[in-house]
Amino acid sequence: MDKLYFTSDYMEGAHPAILERLAETNLVKSAGYGTDEFSESARQKIRAACRAPEAEIHFLAGGTQSNATVIGTMLRPWQGVIAAQTGHVALHEAGAIEAGGHKVILLPGRDGKLSADDIRACLEEYEADENRTHMVEPGMVYLSQPTELGTLYSLAELQAVSRVCREHGVSLYADGARLAYALACPENDVTLPDLAALCDAFYIGGTKCGALFGEAVVFPKAGTVPHFFTLVKQRGALLAKGRIAGIQFETLFTGGLYEQIGKSAVRQASRIREALRAKGYDQAFTAPTNQVFPLFDDAQLKRLGERVEMSFWEKHPDGRTVMRLATSWATRDEDVDALIACL
Amino acid sequence: MDKLYFTSDYMEGAHPAILERLAETNLVKSAGYGTDEFSESARQKIRAACRAPEAEIHFLAGGTQSNATVIGTMLRPWQGVIAAQTGHVALHEAGAIEAGGHKVILLPGRDGKLSADDIRACLEEYEADENRTHMVEPGMVYLSQPTELGTLYSLAELQAVSRVCREHGVSLYADGARLAYALACPENDVTLPDLAALCDAFYIGGTKCGALFGEAVVFPKAGTVPHFFTLVKQRGALLAKGRIAGIQFETLFTGGLYEQIGKSAVRQASRIREALRAKGYDQAFTAPTNQVFPLFDDAQLKRLGERVEMSFWEKHPDGRTVMRLATSWATRDEDVDALIACL
Amino acid sequence: MDKLYFTSDYMEGAHPAILERLAETNLVKSAGYGTDEFSESARQKIRAACRAPEAEIHFLAGGTQSNATVIGTMLRPWQGVIAAQTGHVALHEAGAIEAGGHKVILLPGRDGKLSADDIRACLEEYEADENRTHMVEPGMVYLSQPTELGTLYSLAELQAVSRVCREHGVSLYADGARLAYALACPENDVTLPDLAALCDAFYIGGTKCGALFGEAVVFPKAGTVPHFFTLVKQRGALLAKGRIAGIQFETLFTGGLYEQIGKSAVRQASRIREALRAKGYDQAFTAPTNQVFPLFDDAQLKRLGERVEMSFWEKHPDGRTVMRLATSWATRDEDVDALIACL
Amino acid sequence: MDKLYFTSDYMEGAHPAILERLAETNLVKSAGYGTDEFSESARQKIRAACRAPEAEIHFLAGGTQSNATVIGTMLRPWQGVIAAQTGHVALHEAGAIEAGGHKVILLPGRDGKLSADDIRACLEEYEADENRTHMVEPGMVYLSQPTELGTLYSLAELQAVSRVCREHGVSLYADGARLAYALACPENDVTLPDLAALCDAFYIGGTKCGALFGEAVVFPKAGTVPHFFTLVKQRGALLAKGRIAGIQFETLFTGGLYEQIGKSAVRQASRIREALRAKGYDQAFTAPTNQVFPLFDDAQLKRLGERVEMSFWEKHPDGRTVMRLATSWATRDEDVDALIACL
Repeated sequence: MDKLYFTSDYMEGAHPAILERLAETNLVKSAGYGTDEFSESARQKIRAACRAPEAEIHFLAGGTQSNATVIGTMLRPWQGVIAAQTGHVALHEAGAIEAGGHKVILLPGRDGKLSADDIRACLEEYEADENRTHMVEPGMVYLSQPTELGTLYSLAELQAVSRVCREHGVSLYADGARLAYALACPENDVTLPDLAALCDAFYIGGTKCGALFGEAVVFPKAGTVPHFFTLVKQRGALLAKGRIAGIQFETLFTGGLYEQIGKSAVRQASRIREALRAKGYDQAFTAPTNQVFPLFDDAQLKRLGERVEMSFWEKHPDGRTVMRLATSWATRDEDVDALIACL
Repeated sequence: MDKLYFTSDYMEGAHPAILERLAETNLVKSAGYGTDEFSESARQKIRAACRAPEAEIHFLAGGTQSNATVIGTMLRPWQGVIAAQTGHVALHEAGAIEAGGHKVILLPGRDGKLSADDIRACLEEYEADENRTHMVEPGMVYLSQPTELGTLYSLAELQAVSRVCREHGVSLYADGARLAYALACPENDVTLPDLAALCDAFYIGGTKCGALFGEAVVFPKAGTVPHFFTLVKQRGALLAKGRIAGIQFETLFTGGLYEQIGKSAVRQASRIREALRAKGYDQAFTAPTNQVFPLFDDAQLKRLGERVEMSFWEKHPDGRTVMRLATSWATRDEDVDALIACL
Repeated sequence: MDKLYFTSDYMEGAHPAILERLAETNLVKSAGYGTDEFSESARQKIRAACRAPEAEIHFLAGGTQSNATVIGTMLRPWQGVIAAQTGHVALHEAGAIEAGGHKVILLPGRDGKLSADDIRACLEEYEADENRTHMVEPGMVYLSQPTELGTLYSLAELQAVSRVCREHGVSLYADGARLAYALACPENDVTLPDLAALCDAFYIGGTKCGALFGEAVVFPKAGTVPHFFTLVKQRGALLAKGRIAGIQFETLFTGGLYEQIGKSAVRQASRIREALRAKGYDQAFTAPTNQVFPLFDDAQLKRLGERVEMSFWEKHPDGRTVMRLATSWATRDEDVDALIACL
Repeated sequence: MDKLYFTSDYMEGAHPAILERLAETNLVKSAGYGTDEFSESARQKIRAACRAPEAEIHFLAGGTQSNATVIGTMLRPWQGVIAAQTGHVALHEAGAIEAGGHKVILLPGRDGKLSADDIRACLEEYEADENRTHMVEPGMVYLSQPTELGTLYSLAELQAVSRVCREHGVSLYADGARLAYALACPENDVTLPDLAALCDAFYIGGTKCGALFGEAVVFPKAGTVPHFFTLVKQRGALLAKGRIAGIQFETLFTGGLYEQIGKSAVRQASRIREALRAKGYDQAFTAPTNQVFPLFDDAQLKRLGERVEMSFWEKHPDGRTVMRLATSWATRDEDVDALIACL
């Protein structure tokens, strides 16, 4: 019997519509480095979706690259970035932010989320410290929507965070590696125009949301980082055939494909969550997006492991194990049916 | 009448065989970060082509990224890299090497090539300098095959450079952004096994040789850079869907596609070179690969510019302009016929 | 009535013996960059005091510079340094470690000290993590003796930390900015030879222990960092007149001056501590060295502040304020008498 | 017979007036990090000498540190610094500028000096380059007064360089490691007020001009680099006992000591130059300051080497050797008499 794969949301190639469009446009000749017509069209569609007609948009290849490039170029040399302890930049980017010269200032977070109050306290403590000229200045807040634990900031929460940042002159940056799954979530009330209004920069994830690769970095206000194009090049993040990213985002933002990809994955994840609940399994986080975090005891783990591929997340203090199952645009009804049958 | 495009070798998508293979494998589930079966198969094929069964191979997205990652991780903090003044790392990578902390030590070069004698002189001068502990140690030699001017190192030249490097304990790294066009050149006598035998690292270019994107970094000796995988991640150069690069290189190294791509482009470039000669135009460099560097006076430039897209290269001291025309796998007979008709 | 100054241990110039020796040697001509006879003599005396005849010793100008240079050159690019949350490198060096490309991995610590168990847990967690190739590898442990809170590692504690480090192949580095005050402490059982035996690097503080400036970086094993001299130069930390640091350390390590400076300051601090206890004041840490951390309520603070200069340390949760008083070689009996009279 | 030492201008301690003042002030208690009264007094005296009442002044420990800190903090990440091929930052600072992330853009220079025309050509070439967004932007010009070859910019030359810089929006920074010897030179017509008017930053050298250590970094316009204090700390260049540098500069700028030190050394160097000329020796550069660059053949070198310590500079193409002799405030008439007697 075949294995069932729920290891991650980047196990397949790309949504078929993307491959079709790449084939269709393959012999069109275009200029390099993202100055082509496809990339420009993708930018226009994203600007429209964000209701941010002046936004500056760049297509980069991956999430760590986008985070390191945006954070490293927006911060000034005496500044660091505030992140939750579970934040991707804090844990799983091999020290990319520090390699770029900046401290990641950790706050505990709750269910993967920073609170406006904790951020305010951190900023006020710095501002009040007599030794602050010997210290790293918090210059930016980094958060993920959805978070690394699959949870969501509500609009009210994001507005509160944004307000604190603006009151203290600190930038707000949102990592949208899995943004499609947030946008598609019934529980979600944060739209792309909200992100554009509340953040100084964010990226719309492609790699984990149906593209071969690619993230769309959005600066709602053009010129936020002077010479950003050159800095992207300097960091080895400029794609010679920029069109390949452009065509993918053009496709994702045509006919509602990005939303559709998100919806399909969230629906499958919700089916898994309901089945887990129905069968009496606990879940570690109230994650409504495309990631599911069940708790299994050793016997369950052994039995399920024979049939289902999933990711180890962490040991729970009570001895059980938190695992992660992820769905994607490619997850089919029958895959989830088979999984549920195993539980 | 349509424009004729000879601006660069990255104006189209990818060789159709690559798109087909991406479509064919699209729904196969695989592990991320280059640990998938496609990437492993591509590595095996490249090892075989290089006759380097122990080689360590990583797939990165682009040339500047590959150069910065390899050079930055092979050099120790007190070292710099020797390059020709026309070298890509010296001029057109936005200071990526220096941003990584290392000096590019410039030697004049001839027709874009470093000579073993100049390198030896540079190394001996450093070694003899009483103040060398206050100076940057040359720790690596960077060269391009073919060079940025489309010229080629002969095997004898490359052997001489390699010998100097090894005598002085200095690494040798070859940038193969356009390697397919060198390998396909009748004038060329440097093979992939030669590169593997003579260099400590090199990369086989995909982006400019028919792929959507991607370069295969080859360390003939595995473990040359400890923790290279993590350092690739730290630099934002690790592809989550590593398979996309792997599938492309697997395709390029199946059935001789990489050679075929090179040959086709070189044949078209040679047709252009012959026509230029026949019609009395001078060429700036004796470049036998896929780039052609004709000299035009202002009247010629104006006339041709109405029909042909090419790249400005540099002003010649005599007032004429050196232009660059590049061919690729996608250049057709009729494109070159039409170009020749214009000359 | 004059103010009483207990703000820090670097409020005066240098111990008079140092100024005398500088004057005495002023016209002797010597080579630059620490290759002079005075520096060599100082190295020999330090080697003898550490019973480390093979030690490699460099004189740098200050503590942050020493920390950033040693940590930044001992760590490899994929590594970070473990420190207590109260560690100087974590808080008060303006992000110098991160500016050099490395993460400071925070552990909570107790009274400013790391425990061997916490370090072991951190190392084992990293080693067991399936995603560790996407993470920063802990490559070094940083601790301070005495700590930033004036507390001391016992020999048993330091041995335990050293054992864990060696078992896991991780370096151990001790910041000895105030080492004289540890060595002079009756409670202390860690000697210079112990530090040399247990650490891979440490520095013997001069700036805060009676010198005009200067720290002696000691690598018990010569060659620990290849090309360290050049890296010191690259970081702008090489003194052209290296002799000025050399002469100071030669003086400090002649006739027991370093110990004498420590003893005098610790004796005065102990008098303050006893007086505080006698008068019913609490102290925040059990700090036996030259720093005293009394808790004052607002009224006390106001009254004492009119006469005594001290440093704000932190607000205590109970509303009182932790202040810091520091003594030095220059603190006189009458200064402490006057202070005690105020309490 | 004793050796005669002309190896460098940093072979002794400090001018006796500095040691006296350090002794005199030794027990005065003051605040740290350059916020003390001595440093403030030194700043006022330097502002007066520069007729730059608004200047921001920081005292750093050495020249490489000052260069790396000023250049690294004034440049933005996409920029590099133009320097002469003989510039100290280009050759003898162990790659400190590149370690800070920035390219040193080399221009040939003449007798160690950059010409305004060469700078303009370099800036215009960059501005006209179609690929400039893939290139390092020249963001600053670095020059030394006197140069590394002991030569001087005339006021007209410096004005021309400054004009080009301002026309192109590029900063101008002058390295004054040996500035006392320029200011004291009869041939010199560039004053401190000229430097303050024409440069965006410069430093007044102490280490090579009679101090134990220390350079005064001057920004004629305060706030040129935001958060400069914190960046100095981050680079390990902040002296805890900042007063030690402050006292030295206060002394150097009291009663004309800095000029007097310069004049004495230049007078002795001029005596050597005249004797060389009278005895028929060639000199490599027309260097009117405290450095002398005679050409010796092998026999002369051998004979003189037995009695005189000097520095090797370079081999001359004609087989002779260029040596360097340096004088300082400590060079006495009898030393020069003895040297001349040897020639």
